[in-house]
Order: sequence, then C-alpha cells, then structure tokens
Amino acid sequence: MKLLDGKKVASALDESMGKRVEELKEQGITPGLAVILVGSNSASSVYVRNKKRRAEKLGFDFQLIHYEDTVTETEILNKIDELNNDDSIDGFIVQLPLPDQIDEDKIIQAIDPKKDVDGFSPINVGNLWIGDSTIKPATADGIIKMLDYYDVKLKGKNAVVIGRSNIVGKPVAALLLERNATVTISHIFTKNLPEIASRADVLVVAIGDPKFIKANYIKEGAVVVDVGMNHDENGKLCGDVDFDDVLDKVSMISPVPGGVGPMTITSLMDMTIVLAEERAKKVNGSK
Amino acid sequence: MKLLDGKKVASALDESMGKRVEELKEQGITPGLAVILVGSNSASSVYVRNKKRRAEKLGFDFQLIHYEDTVTETEILNKIDELNNDDSIDGFIVQLPLPDQIDEDKIIQAIDPKKDVDGFSPINVGNLWIGDSTIKPATADGIIKMLDYYDVKLKGKNAVVIGRSNIVGKPVAALLLERNATVTISHIFTKNLPEIASRADVLVVAIGDPKFIKANYIKEGAVVVDVGMNHDENGKLCGDVDFDDVLDKVSMISPVPGGVGPMTITSLMDMTIVLAEERAKKVNGSK
Repeated sequence: MKLLDGKKVASALDESMGKRVEELKEQGITPGLAVILVGSNSASSVYVRNKKRRAEKLGFDFQLIHYEDTVTETEILNKIDELNNDDSIDGFIVQLPLPDQIDEDKIIQAIDPKKDVDGFSPINVGNLWIGDSTIKPATADGIIKMLDYYDVKLKGKNAVVIGRSNIVGKPVAALLLERNATVTISHIFTKNLPEIASRADVLVVAIGDPKFIKANYIKEGAVVVDVGMNHDENGKLCGDVDFDDVLDKVSMISPVPGGVGPMTITSLMDMTIVLAEERAKKVNGSK
Repeated sequence: MKLLDGKKVASALDESMGKRVEELKEQGITPGLAVILVGSNSASSVYVRNKKRRAEKLGFDFQLIHYEDTVTETEILNKIDELNNDDSIDGFIVQLPLPDQIDEDKIIQAIDPKKDVDGFSPINVGNLWIGDSTIKPATADGIIKMLDYYDVKLKGKNAVVIGRSNIVGKPVAALLLERNATVTISHIFTKNLPEIASRADVLVVAIGDPKFIKANYIKEGAVVVDVGMNHDENGKLCGDVDFDDVLDKVSMISPVPGGVGPMTITSLMDMTIVLAEERAKKVNGSK
C-alpha cells in the first residue's frame, strides 16, 4: 500500500512554482491573490490562514479582506468590483459560506470569470466540461495533480466519483473524463453503492460523512482519494473513508489530513501563477 | 416491447406548445427563431428544412439566413451581431458544420448566450452542470422529454451514456444526473463496453456508428435511446443500435428514424417559446 501523500506532493510542486514566481518577478510581475473572508467561521479562518501562508511563502502579493459578519451585500459587491478592476490582482476568491443576508449566487456571479480562481462561475464550469479551460476548481485539479505525481494511469480506467457537488464531485468527474477514464457519478440516490463503488479502479469520495466507506466498497487494488474533512466521534479529523478498514485492499490511498487538502491549496496557487503568466504575456506583448 | 415513438410524442407536445404560442400572440409577442445556414451540405439542409417546417407550423416568425459557402467570417459575425440586437428574435442557431475558412468556436462565442437556443456557449453549458439552466442542448432535453412522456423513472436508476460529445453525450449525462440517475459516461477508451453497457437500466447511445450496439450490450428489460443517424450498407437510415438484434431484450427503444430526431426539434421549439415567454414577461413588466 502506498500513501497518496498530498503534503509531500505539494512541497515538491512548490519548488517549481517558486521558480515560476521568480521568473515573473524578473519581468516585474508579482502574482496577486486576494481572499474575501466574512465573519469568524473557524473552519473558514483555518482555510484562509493556510492559503495566506502558502501564497506568502511562494512570494505572492496576498491580500486578506476581512469583514465583520454584519457586512452588507453592497459592500462586498463594491469590493469585488474594485478587485475585478485592479490589475495587480490576478485572482481572488470569496471564502464560503457567507452569512444569511448575503446572496452567494449573486456574489459568485459578480466575480470576473477571468479572475475567478475558484472556477465556480458558469462560464468556467462550461469551459471545464467543453474541455477548454484555463481555470479549474482547485480541489478537482489538485486530485488530478496528485494522481499524476504518483503516476496513476487514468485512460480506460473505471473511475467512480461518490458525491456530485458543484465544488468537488462534478468537476473531478469532468477532469477524469478529460483524462479518458470511464466515469460514473454516484450520489445519495444511488442504489447498491457498495457494488458500484467496488467496480472502481479509481474511487473518489466527497460526501462529508465520517468513515462512511468501508472495505466492502473497495475493489482489490483500487486507488482511493478521500476528499472528506470530518471529525470522528472523538473529535479527531477524519475522511469519508474508514482508512483502517480499507487499508488491506487498496493499492494507494490519500490520508486525511495530509492528502487532498494541501493539494487544493497547491492548485489554487498554480492557477494564480498561470493567470499572472498570462498577465505577463499581455504586458510584454504590448510593449 | 414498447417503441419510444418520438414522432408521436413530438406531435402530442406540439399541441400544448401551439397553445403557448397563441397566448403569446394575444400579448403581442410572436416567438422569433432564426437559423444561419452556410453552403449546401445536404444533411444540414434537411435539418434546417425540418426546423423551418415545425417553427412555421407552430406560428413562429422563422428567418432562414442562407449564405453561399464562400461567405466570410466577418459577414457571419455581423449578422450574429444584428440578431443579438434584434428584439424580435428570441433565439437563433448557426447550423454546423461551417466551411473551413470560418472559425466555429469564434462563431459560437459571438452568439449572445441569452439567445443561444442550441445551448452550446460556455455559460449555458456551465449553468446546465450547475443545475440552474434555462437553455438546454436540444437533443439532450428532447431525450428527457421523451422518457418523461413514457413515464420512465430515472431516480436511482443506472444510466449509461455511450459517447461524450459536447452536443449530446455530456449534456444528456448532466440531465440524467439532475434527474437523480447514477450516471456512467463511456467512450472510445472504455474497456469492456458490453459489460458496462449491460448494467444500464437506461442506455443512451450517441456514437455515430451504424448498428454498433448488439444484444450483448443490453440488460434484460433496459430502456434504450438511440441517438445515431447513420446509413447502413444499403444506404438506408439506421441508428447506432442494431434494432432487430436487441429487440427481444429491451423494454423500450427509440427507432431511427422517428425517435430522437423529432424530439430534438421539439426541444428547440420549446426553448424558443420559453425565451419568448421571458420576453413577454419583461415587456409586460415594463408597461
């Protein structure tokens, strides 16, 4: 059994990303990433802190815009408009969830799709499925980068995705399909899930249910990617897969924590650098 | 065995669509549909003629803009701009394929997504996958309408789509998923296709290969939707499914011709009426 060690992959990729940032700086461009955070949701605060740390380590300009949870929709929309028009910002995200008085759809739609590094705006989702995308949702892209690192072949393999969220399940299905896997998308209404899951050469689980996936869901020798981030009965972080139960059956598995999590941030950073590289091309092209 | 008789469903739906057109006309609105056709591809000409016939039968304003195949990209782009800004046109399509001197992507991108009744522009594809779409690609939507008509339940069923084109395979997968089927997307790189296909309660085939699907691809009692439109060795129209070979195994099957084809046009008409209804709401709202 081999661990899909997201932390290790992330630091390996950090090295080449760091070089790309240096090259950009030599051209007078610093990748600019901003995060809008509202309120004091503790999970969100942790995510944002991790993003900040990685961005600063890579030499980005990082802006954290932190509002009280009494902020109005208009204030956020004005800030988005400002970021949309700020040439030094290559990408930005609004950390979800948002307080009740704010319409999340409206907020997401206000973000210029060219700066939407989360990849959730309709035009970016569309390009993802058409197979012509620059910006890919970070978790899905991070999973593919991790599988690539461990040389997991996808072409012709049976991939099963459990969970069909717009944030993980659907985009990872799109990317597995782009890599020529045969892709099955399963969800809460799927019948005989253990049978369907156990056909998977590559199983991606993103349901948010602690240790839900047991050995009977797993094909002998499967590669398992666990996107879950839950707390078990003792308050300890755990995934959607019962790691100990499946361990003897899998050929590779991503742990929680230290699997998909670090890869998500890596992809977000990579996407920001790609956008900064496009800015550099434009700036140089117009000289 | 029951035939999924697209022709019959189409004329049943024509009736209610006709009533909606009448209601619109009472409000002073006539659904406006335009088709840009380039050159004299005989298949395209047949498709366009069928669309024209149905649109006129339903009482639409139908405009056919027919160019010689020597037309320039600029001419088409100018026409698209004109149609984008013509309030009497609710939707329009550019019939593909286009001659070599024309960049199809550029043409599709020039169409205002709000009038893109084919649903191929990125923003409409994105909304389709997000699950928040007004405009759905006509063939995919037509298939769902046909299954609904015959009361085929999709929730929790295993649906397998063979073929992953942006025009049919992927959008029909999105709609089957929206209806809570467990969806598998298979394609040219899929291994053991007969095994995978024969797990399907609902099998949708869109590969463009005459009579490719034989009885060994079919689960006993499956519902089979054949999107193919090919010519067999005698030049006769046929689908991707070997109709005679699978007949004893299926519970329902769509014939070719007379299955999906008429439903595609029905959905295109329905989509145009929906857009006209939105226009009517806007016009009345602003009174």
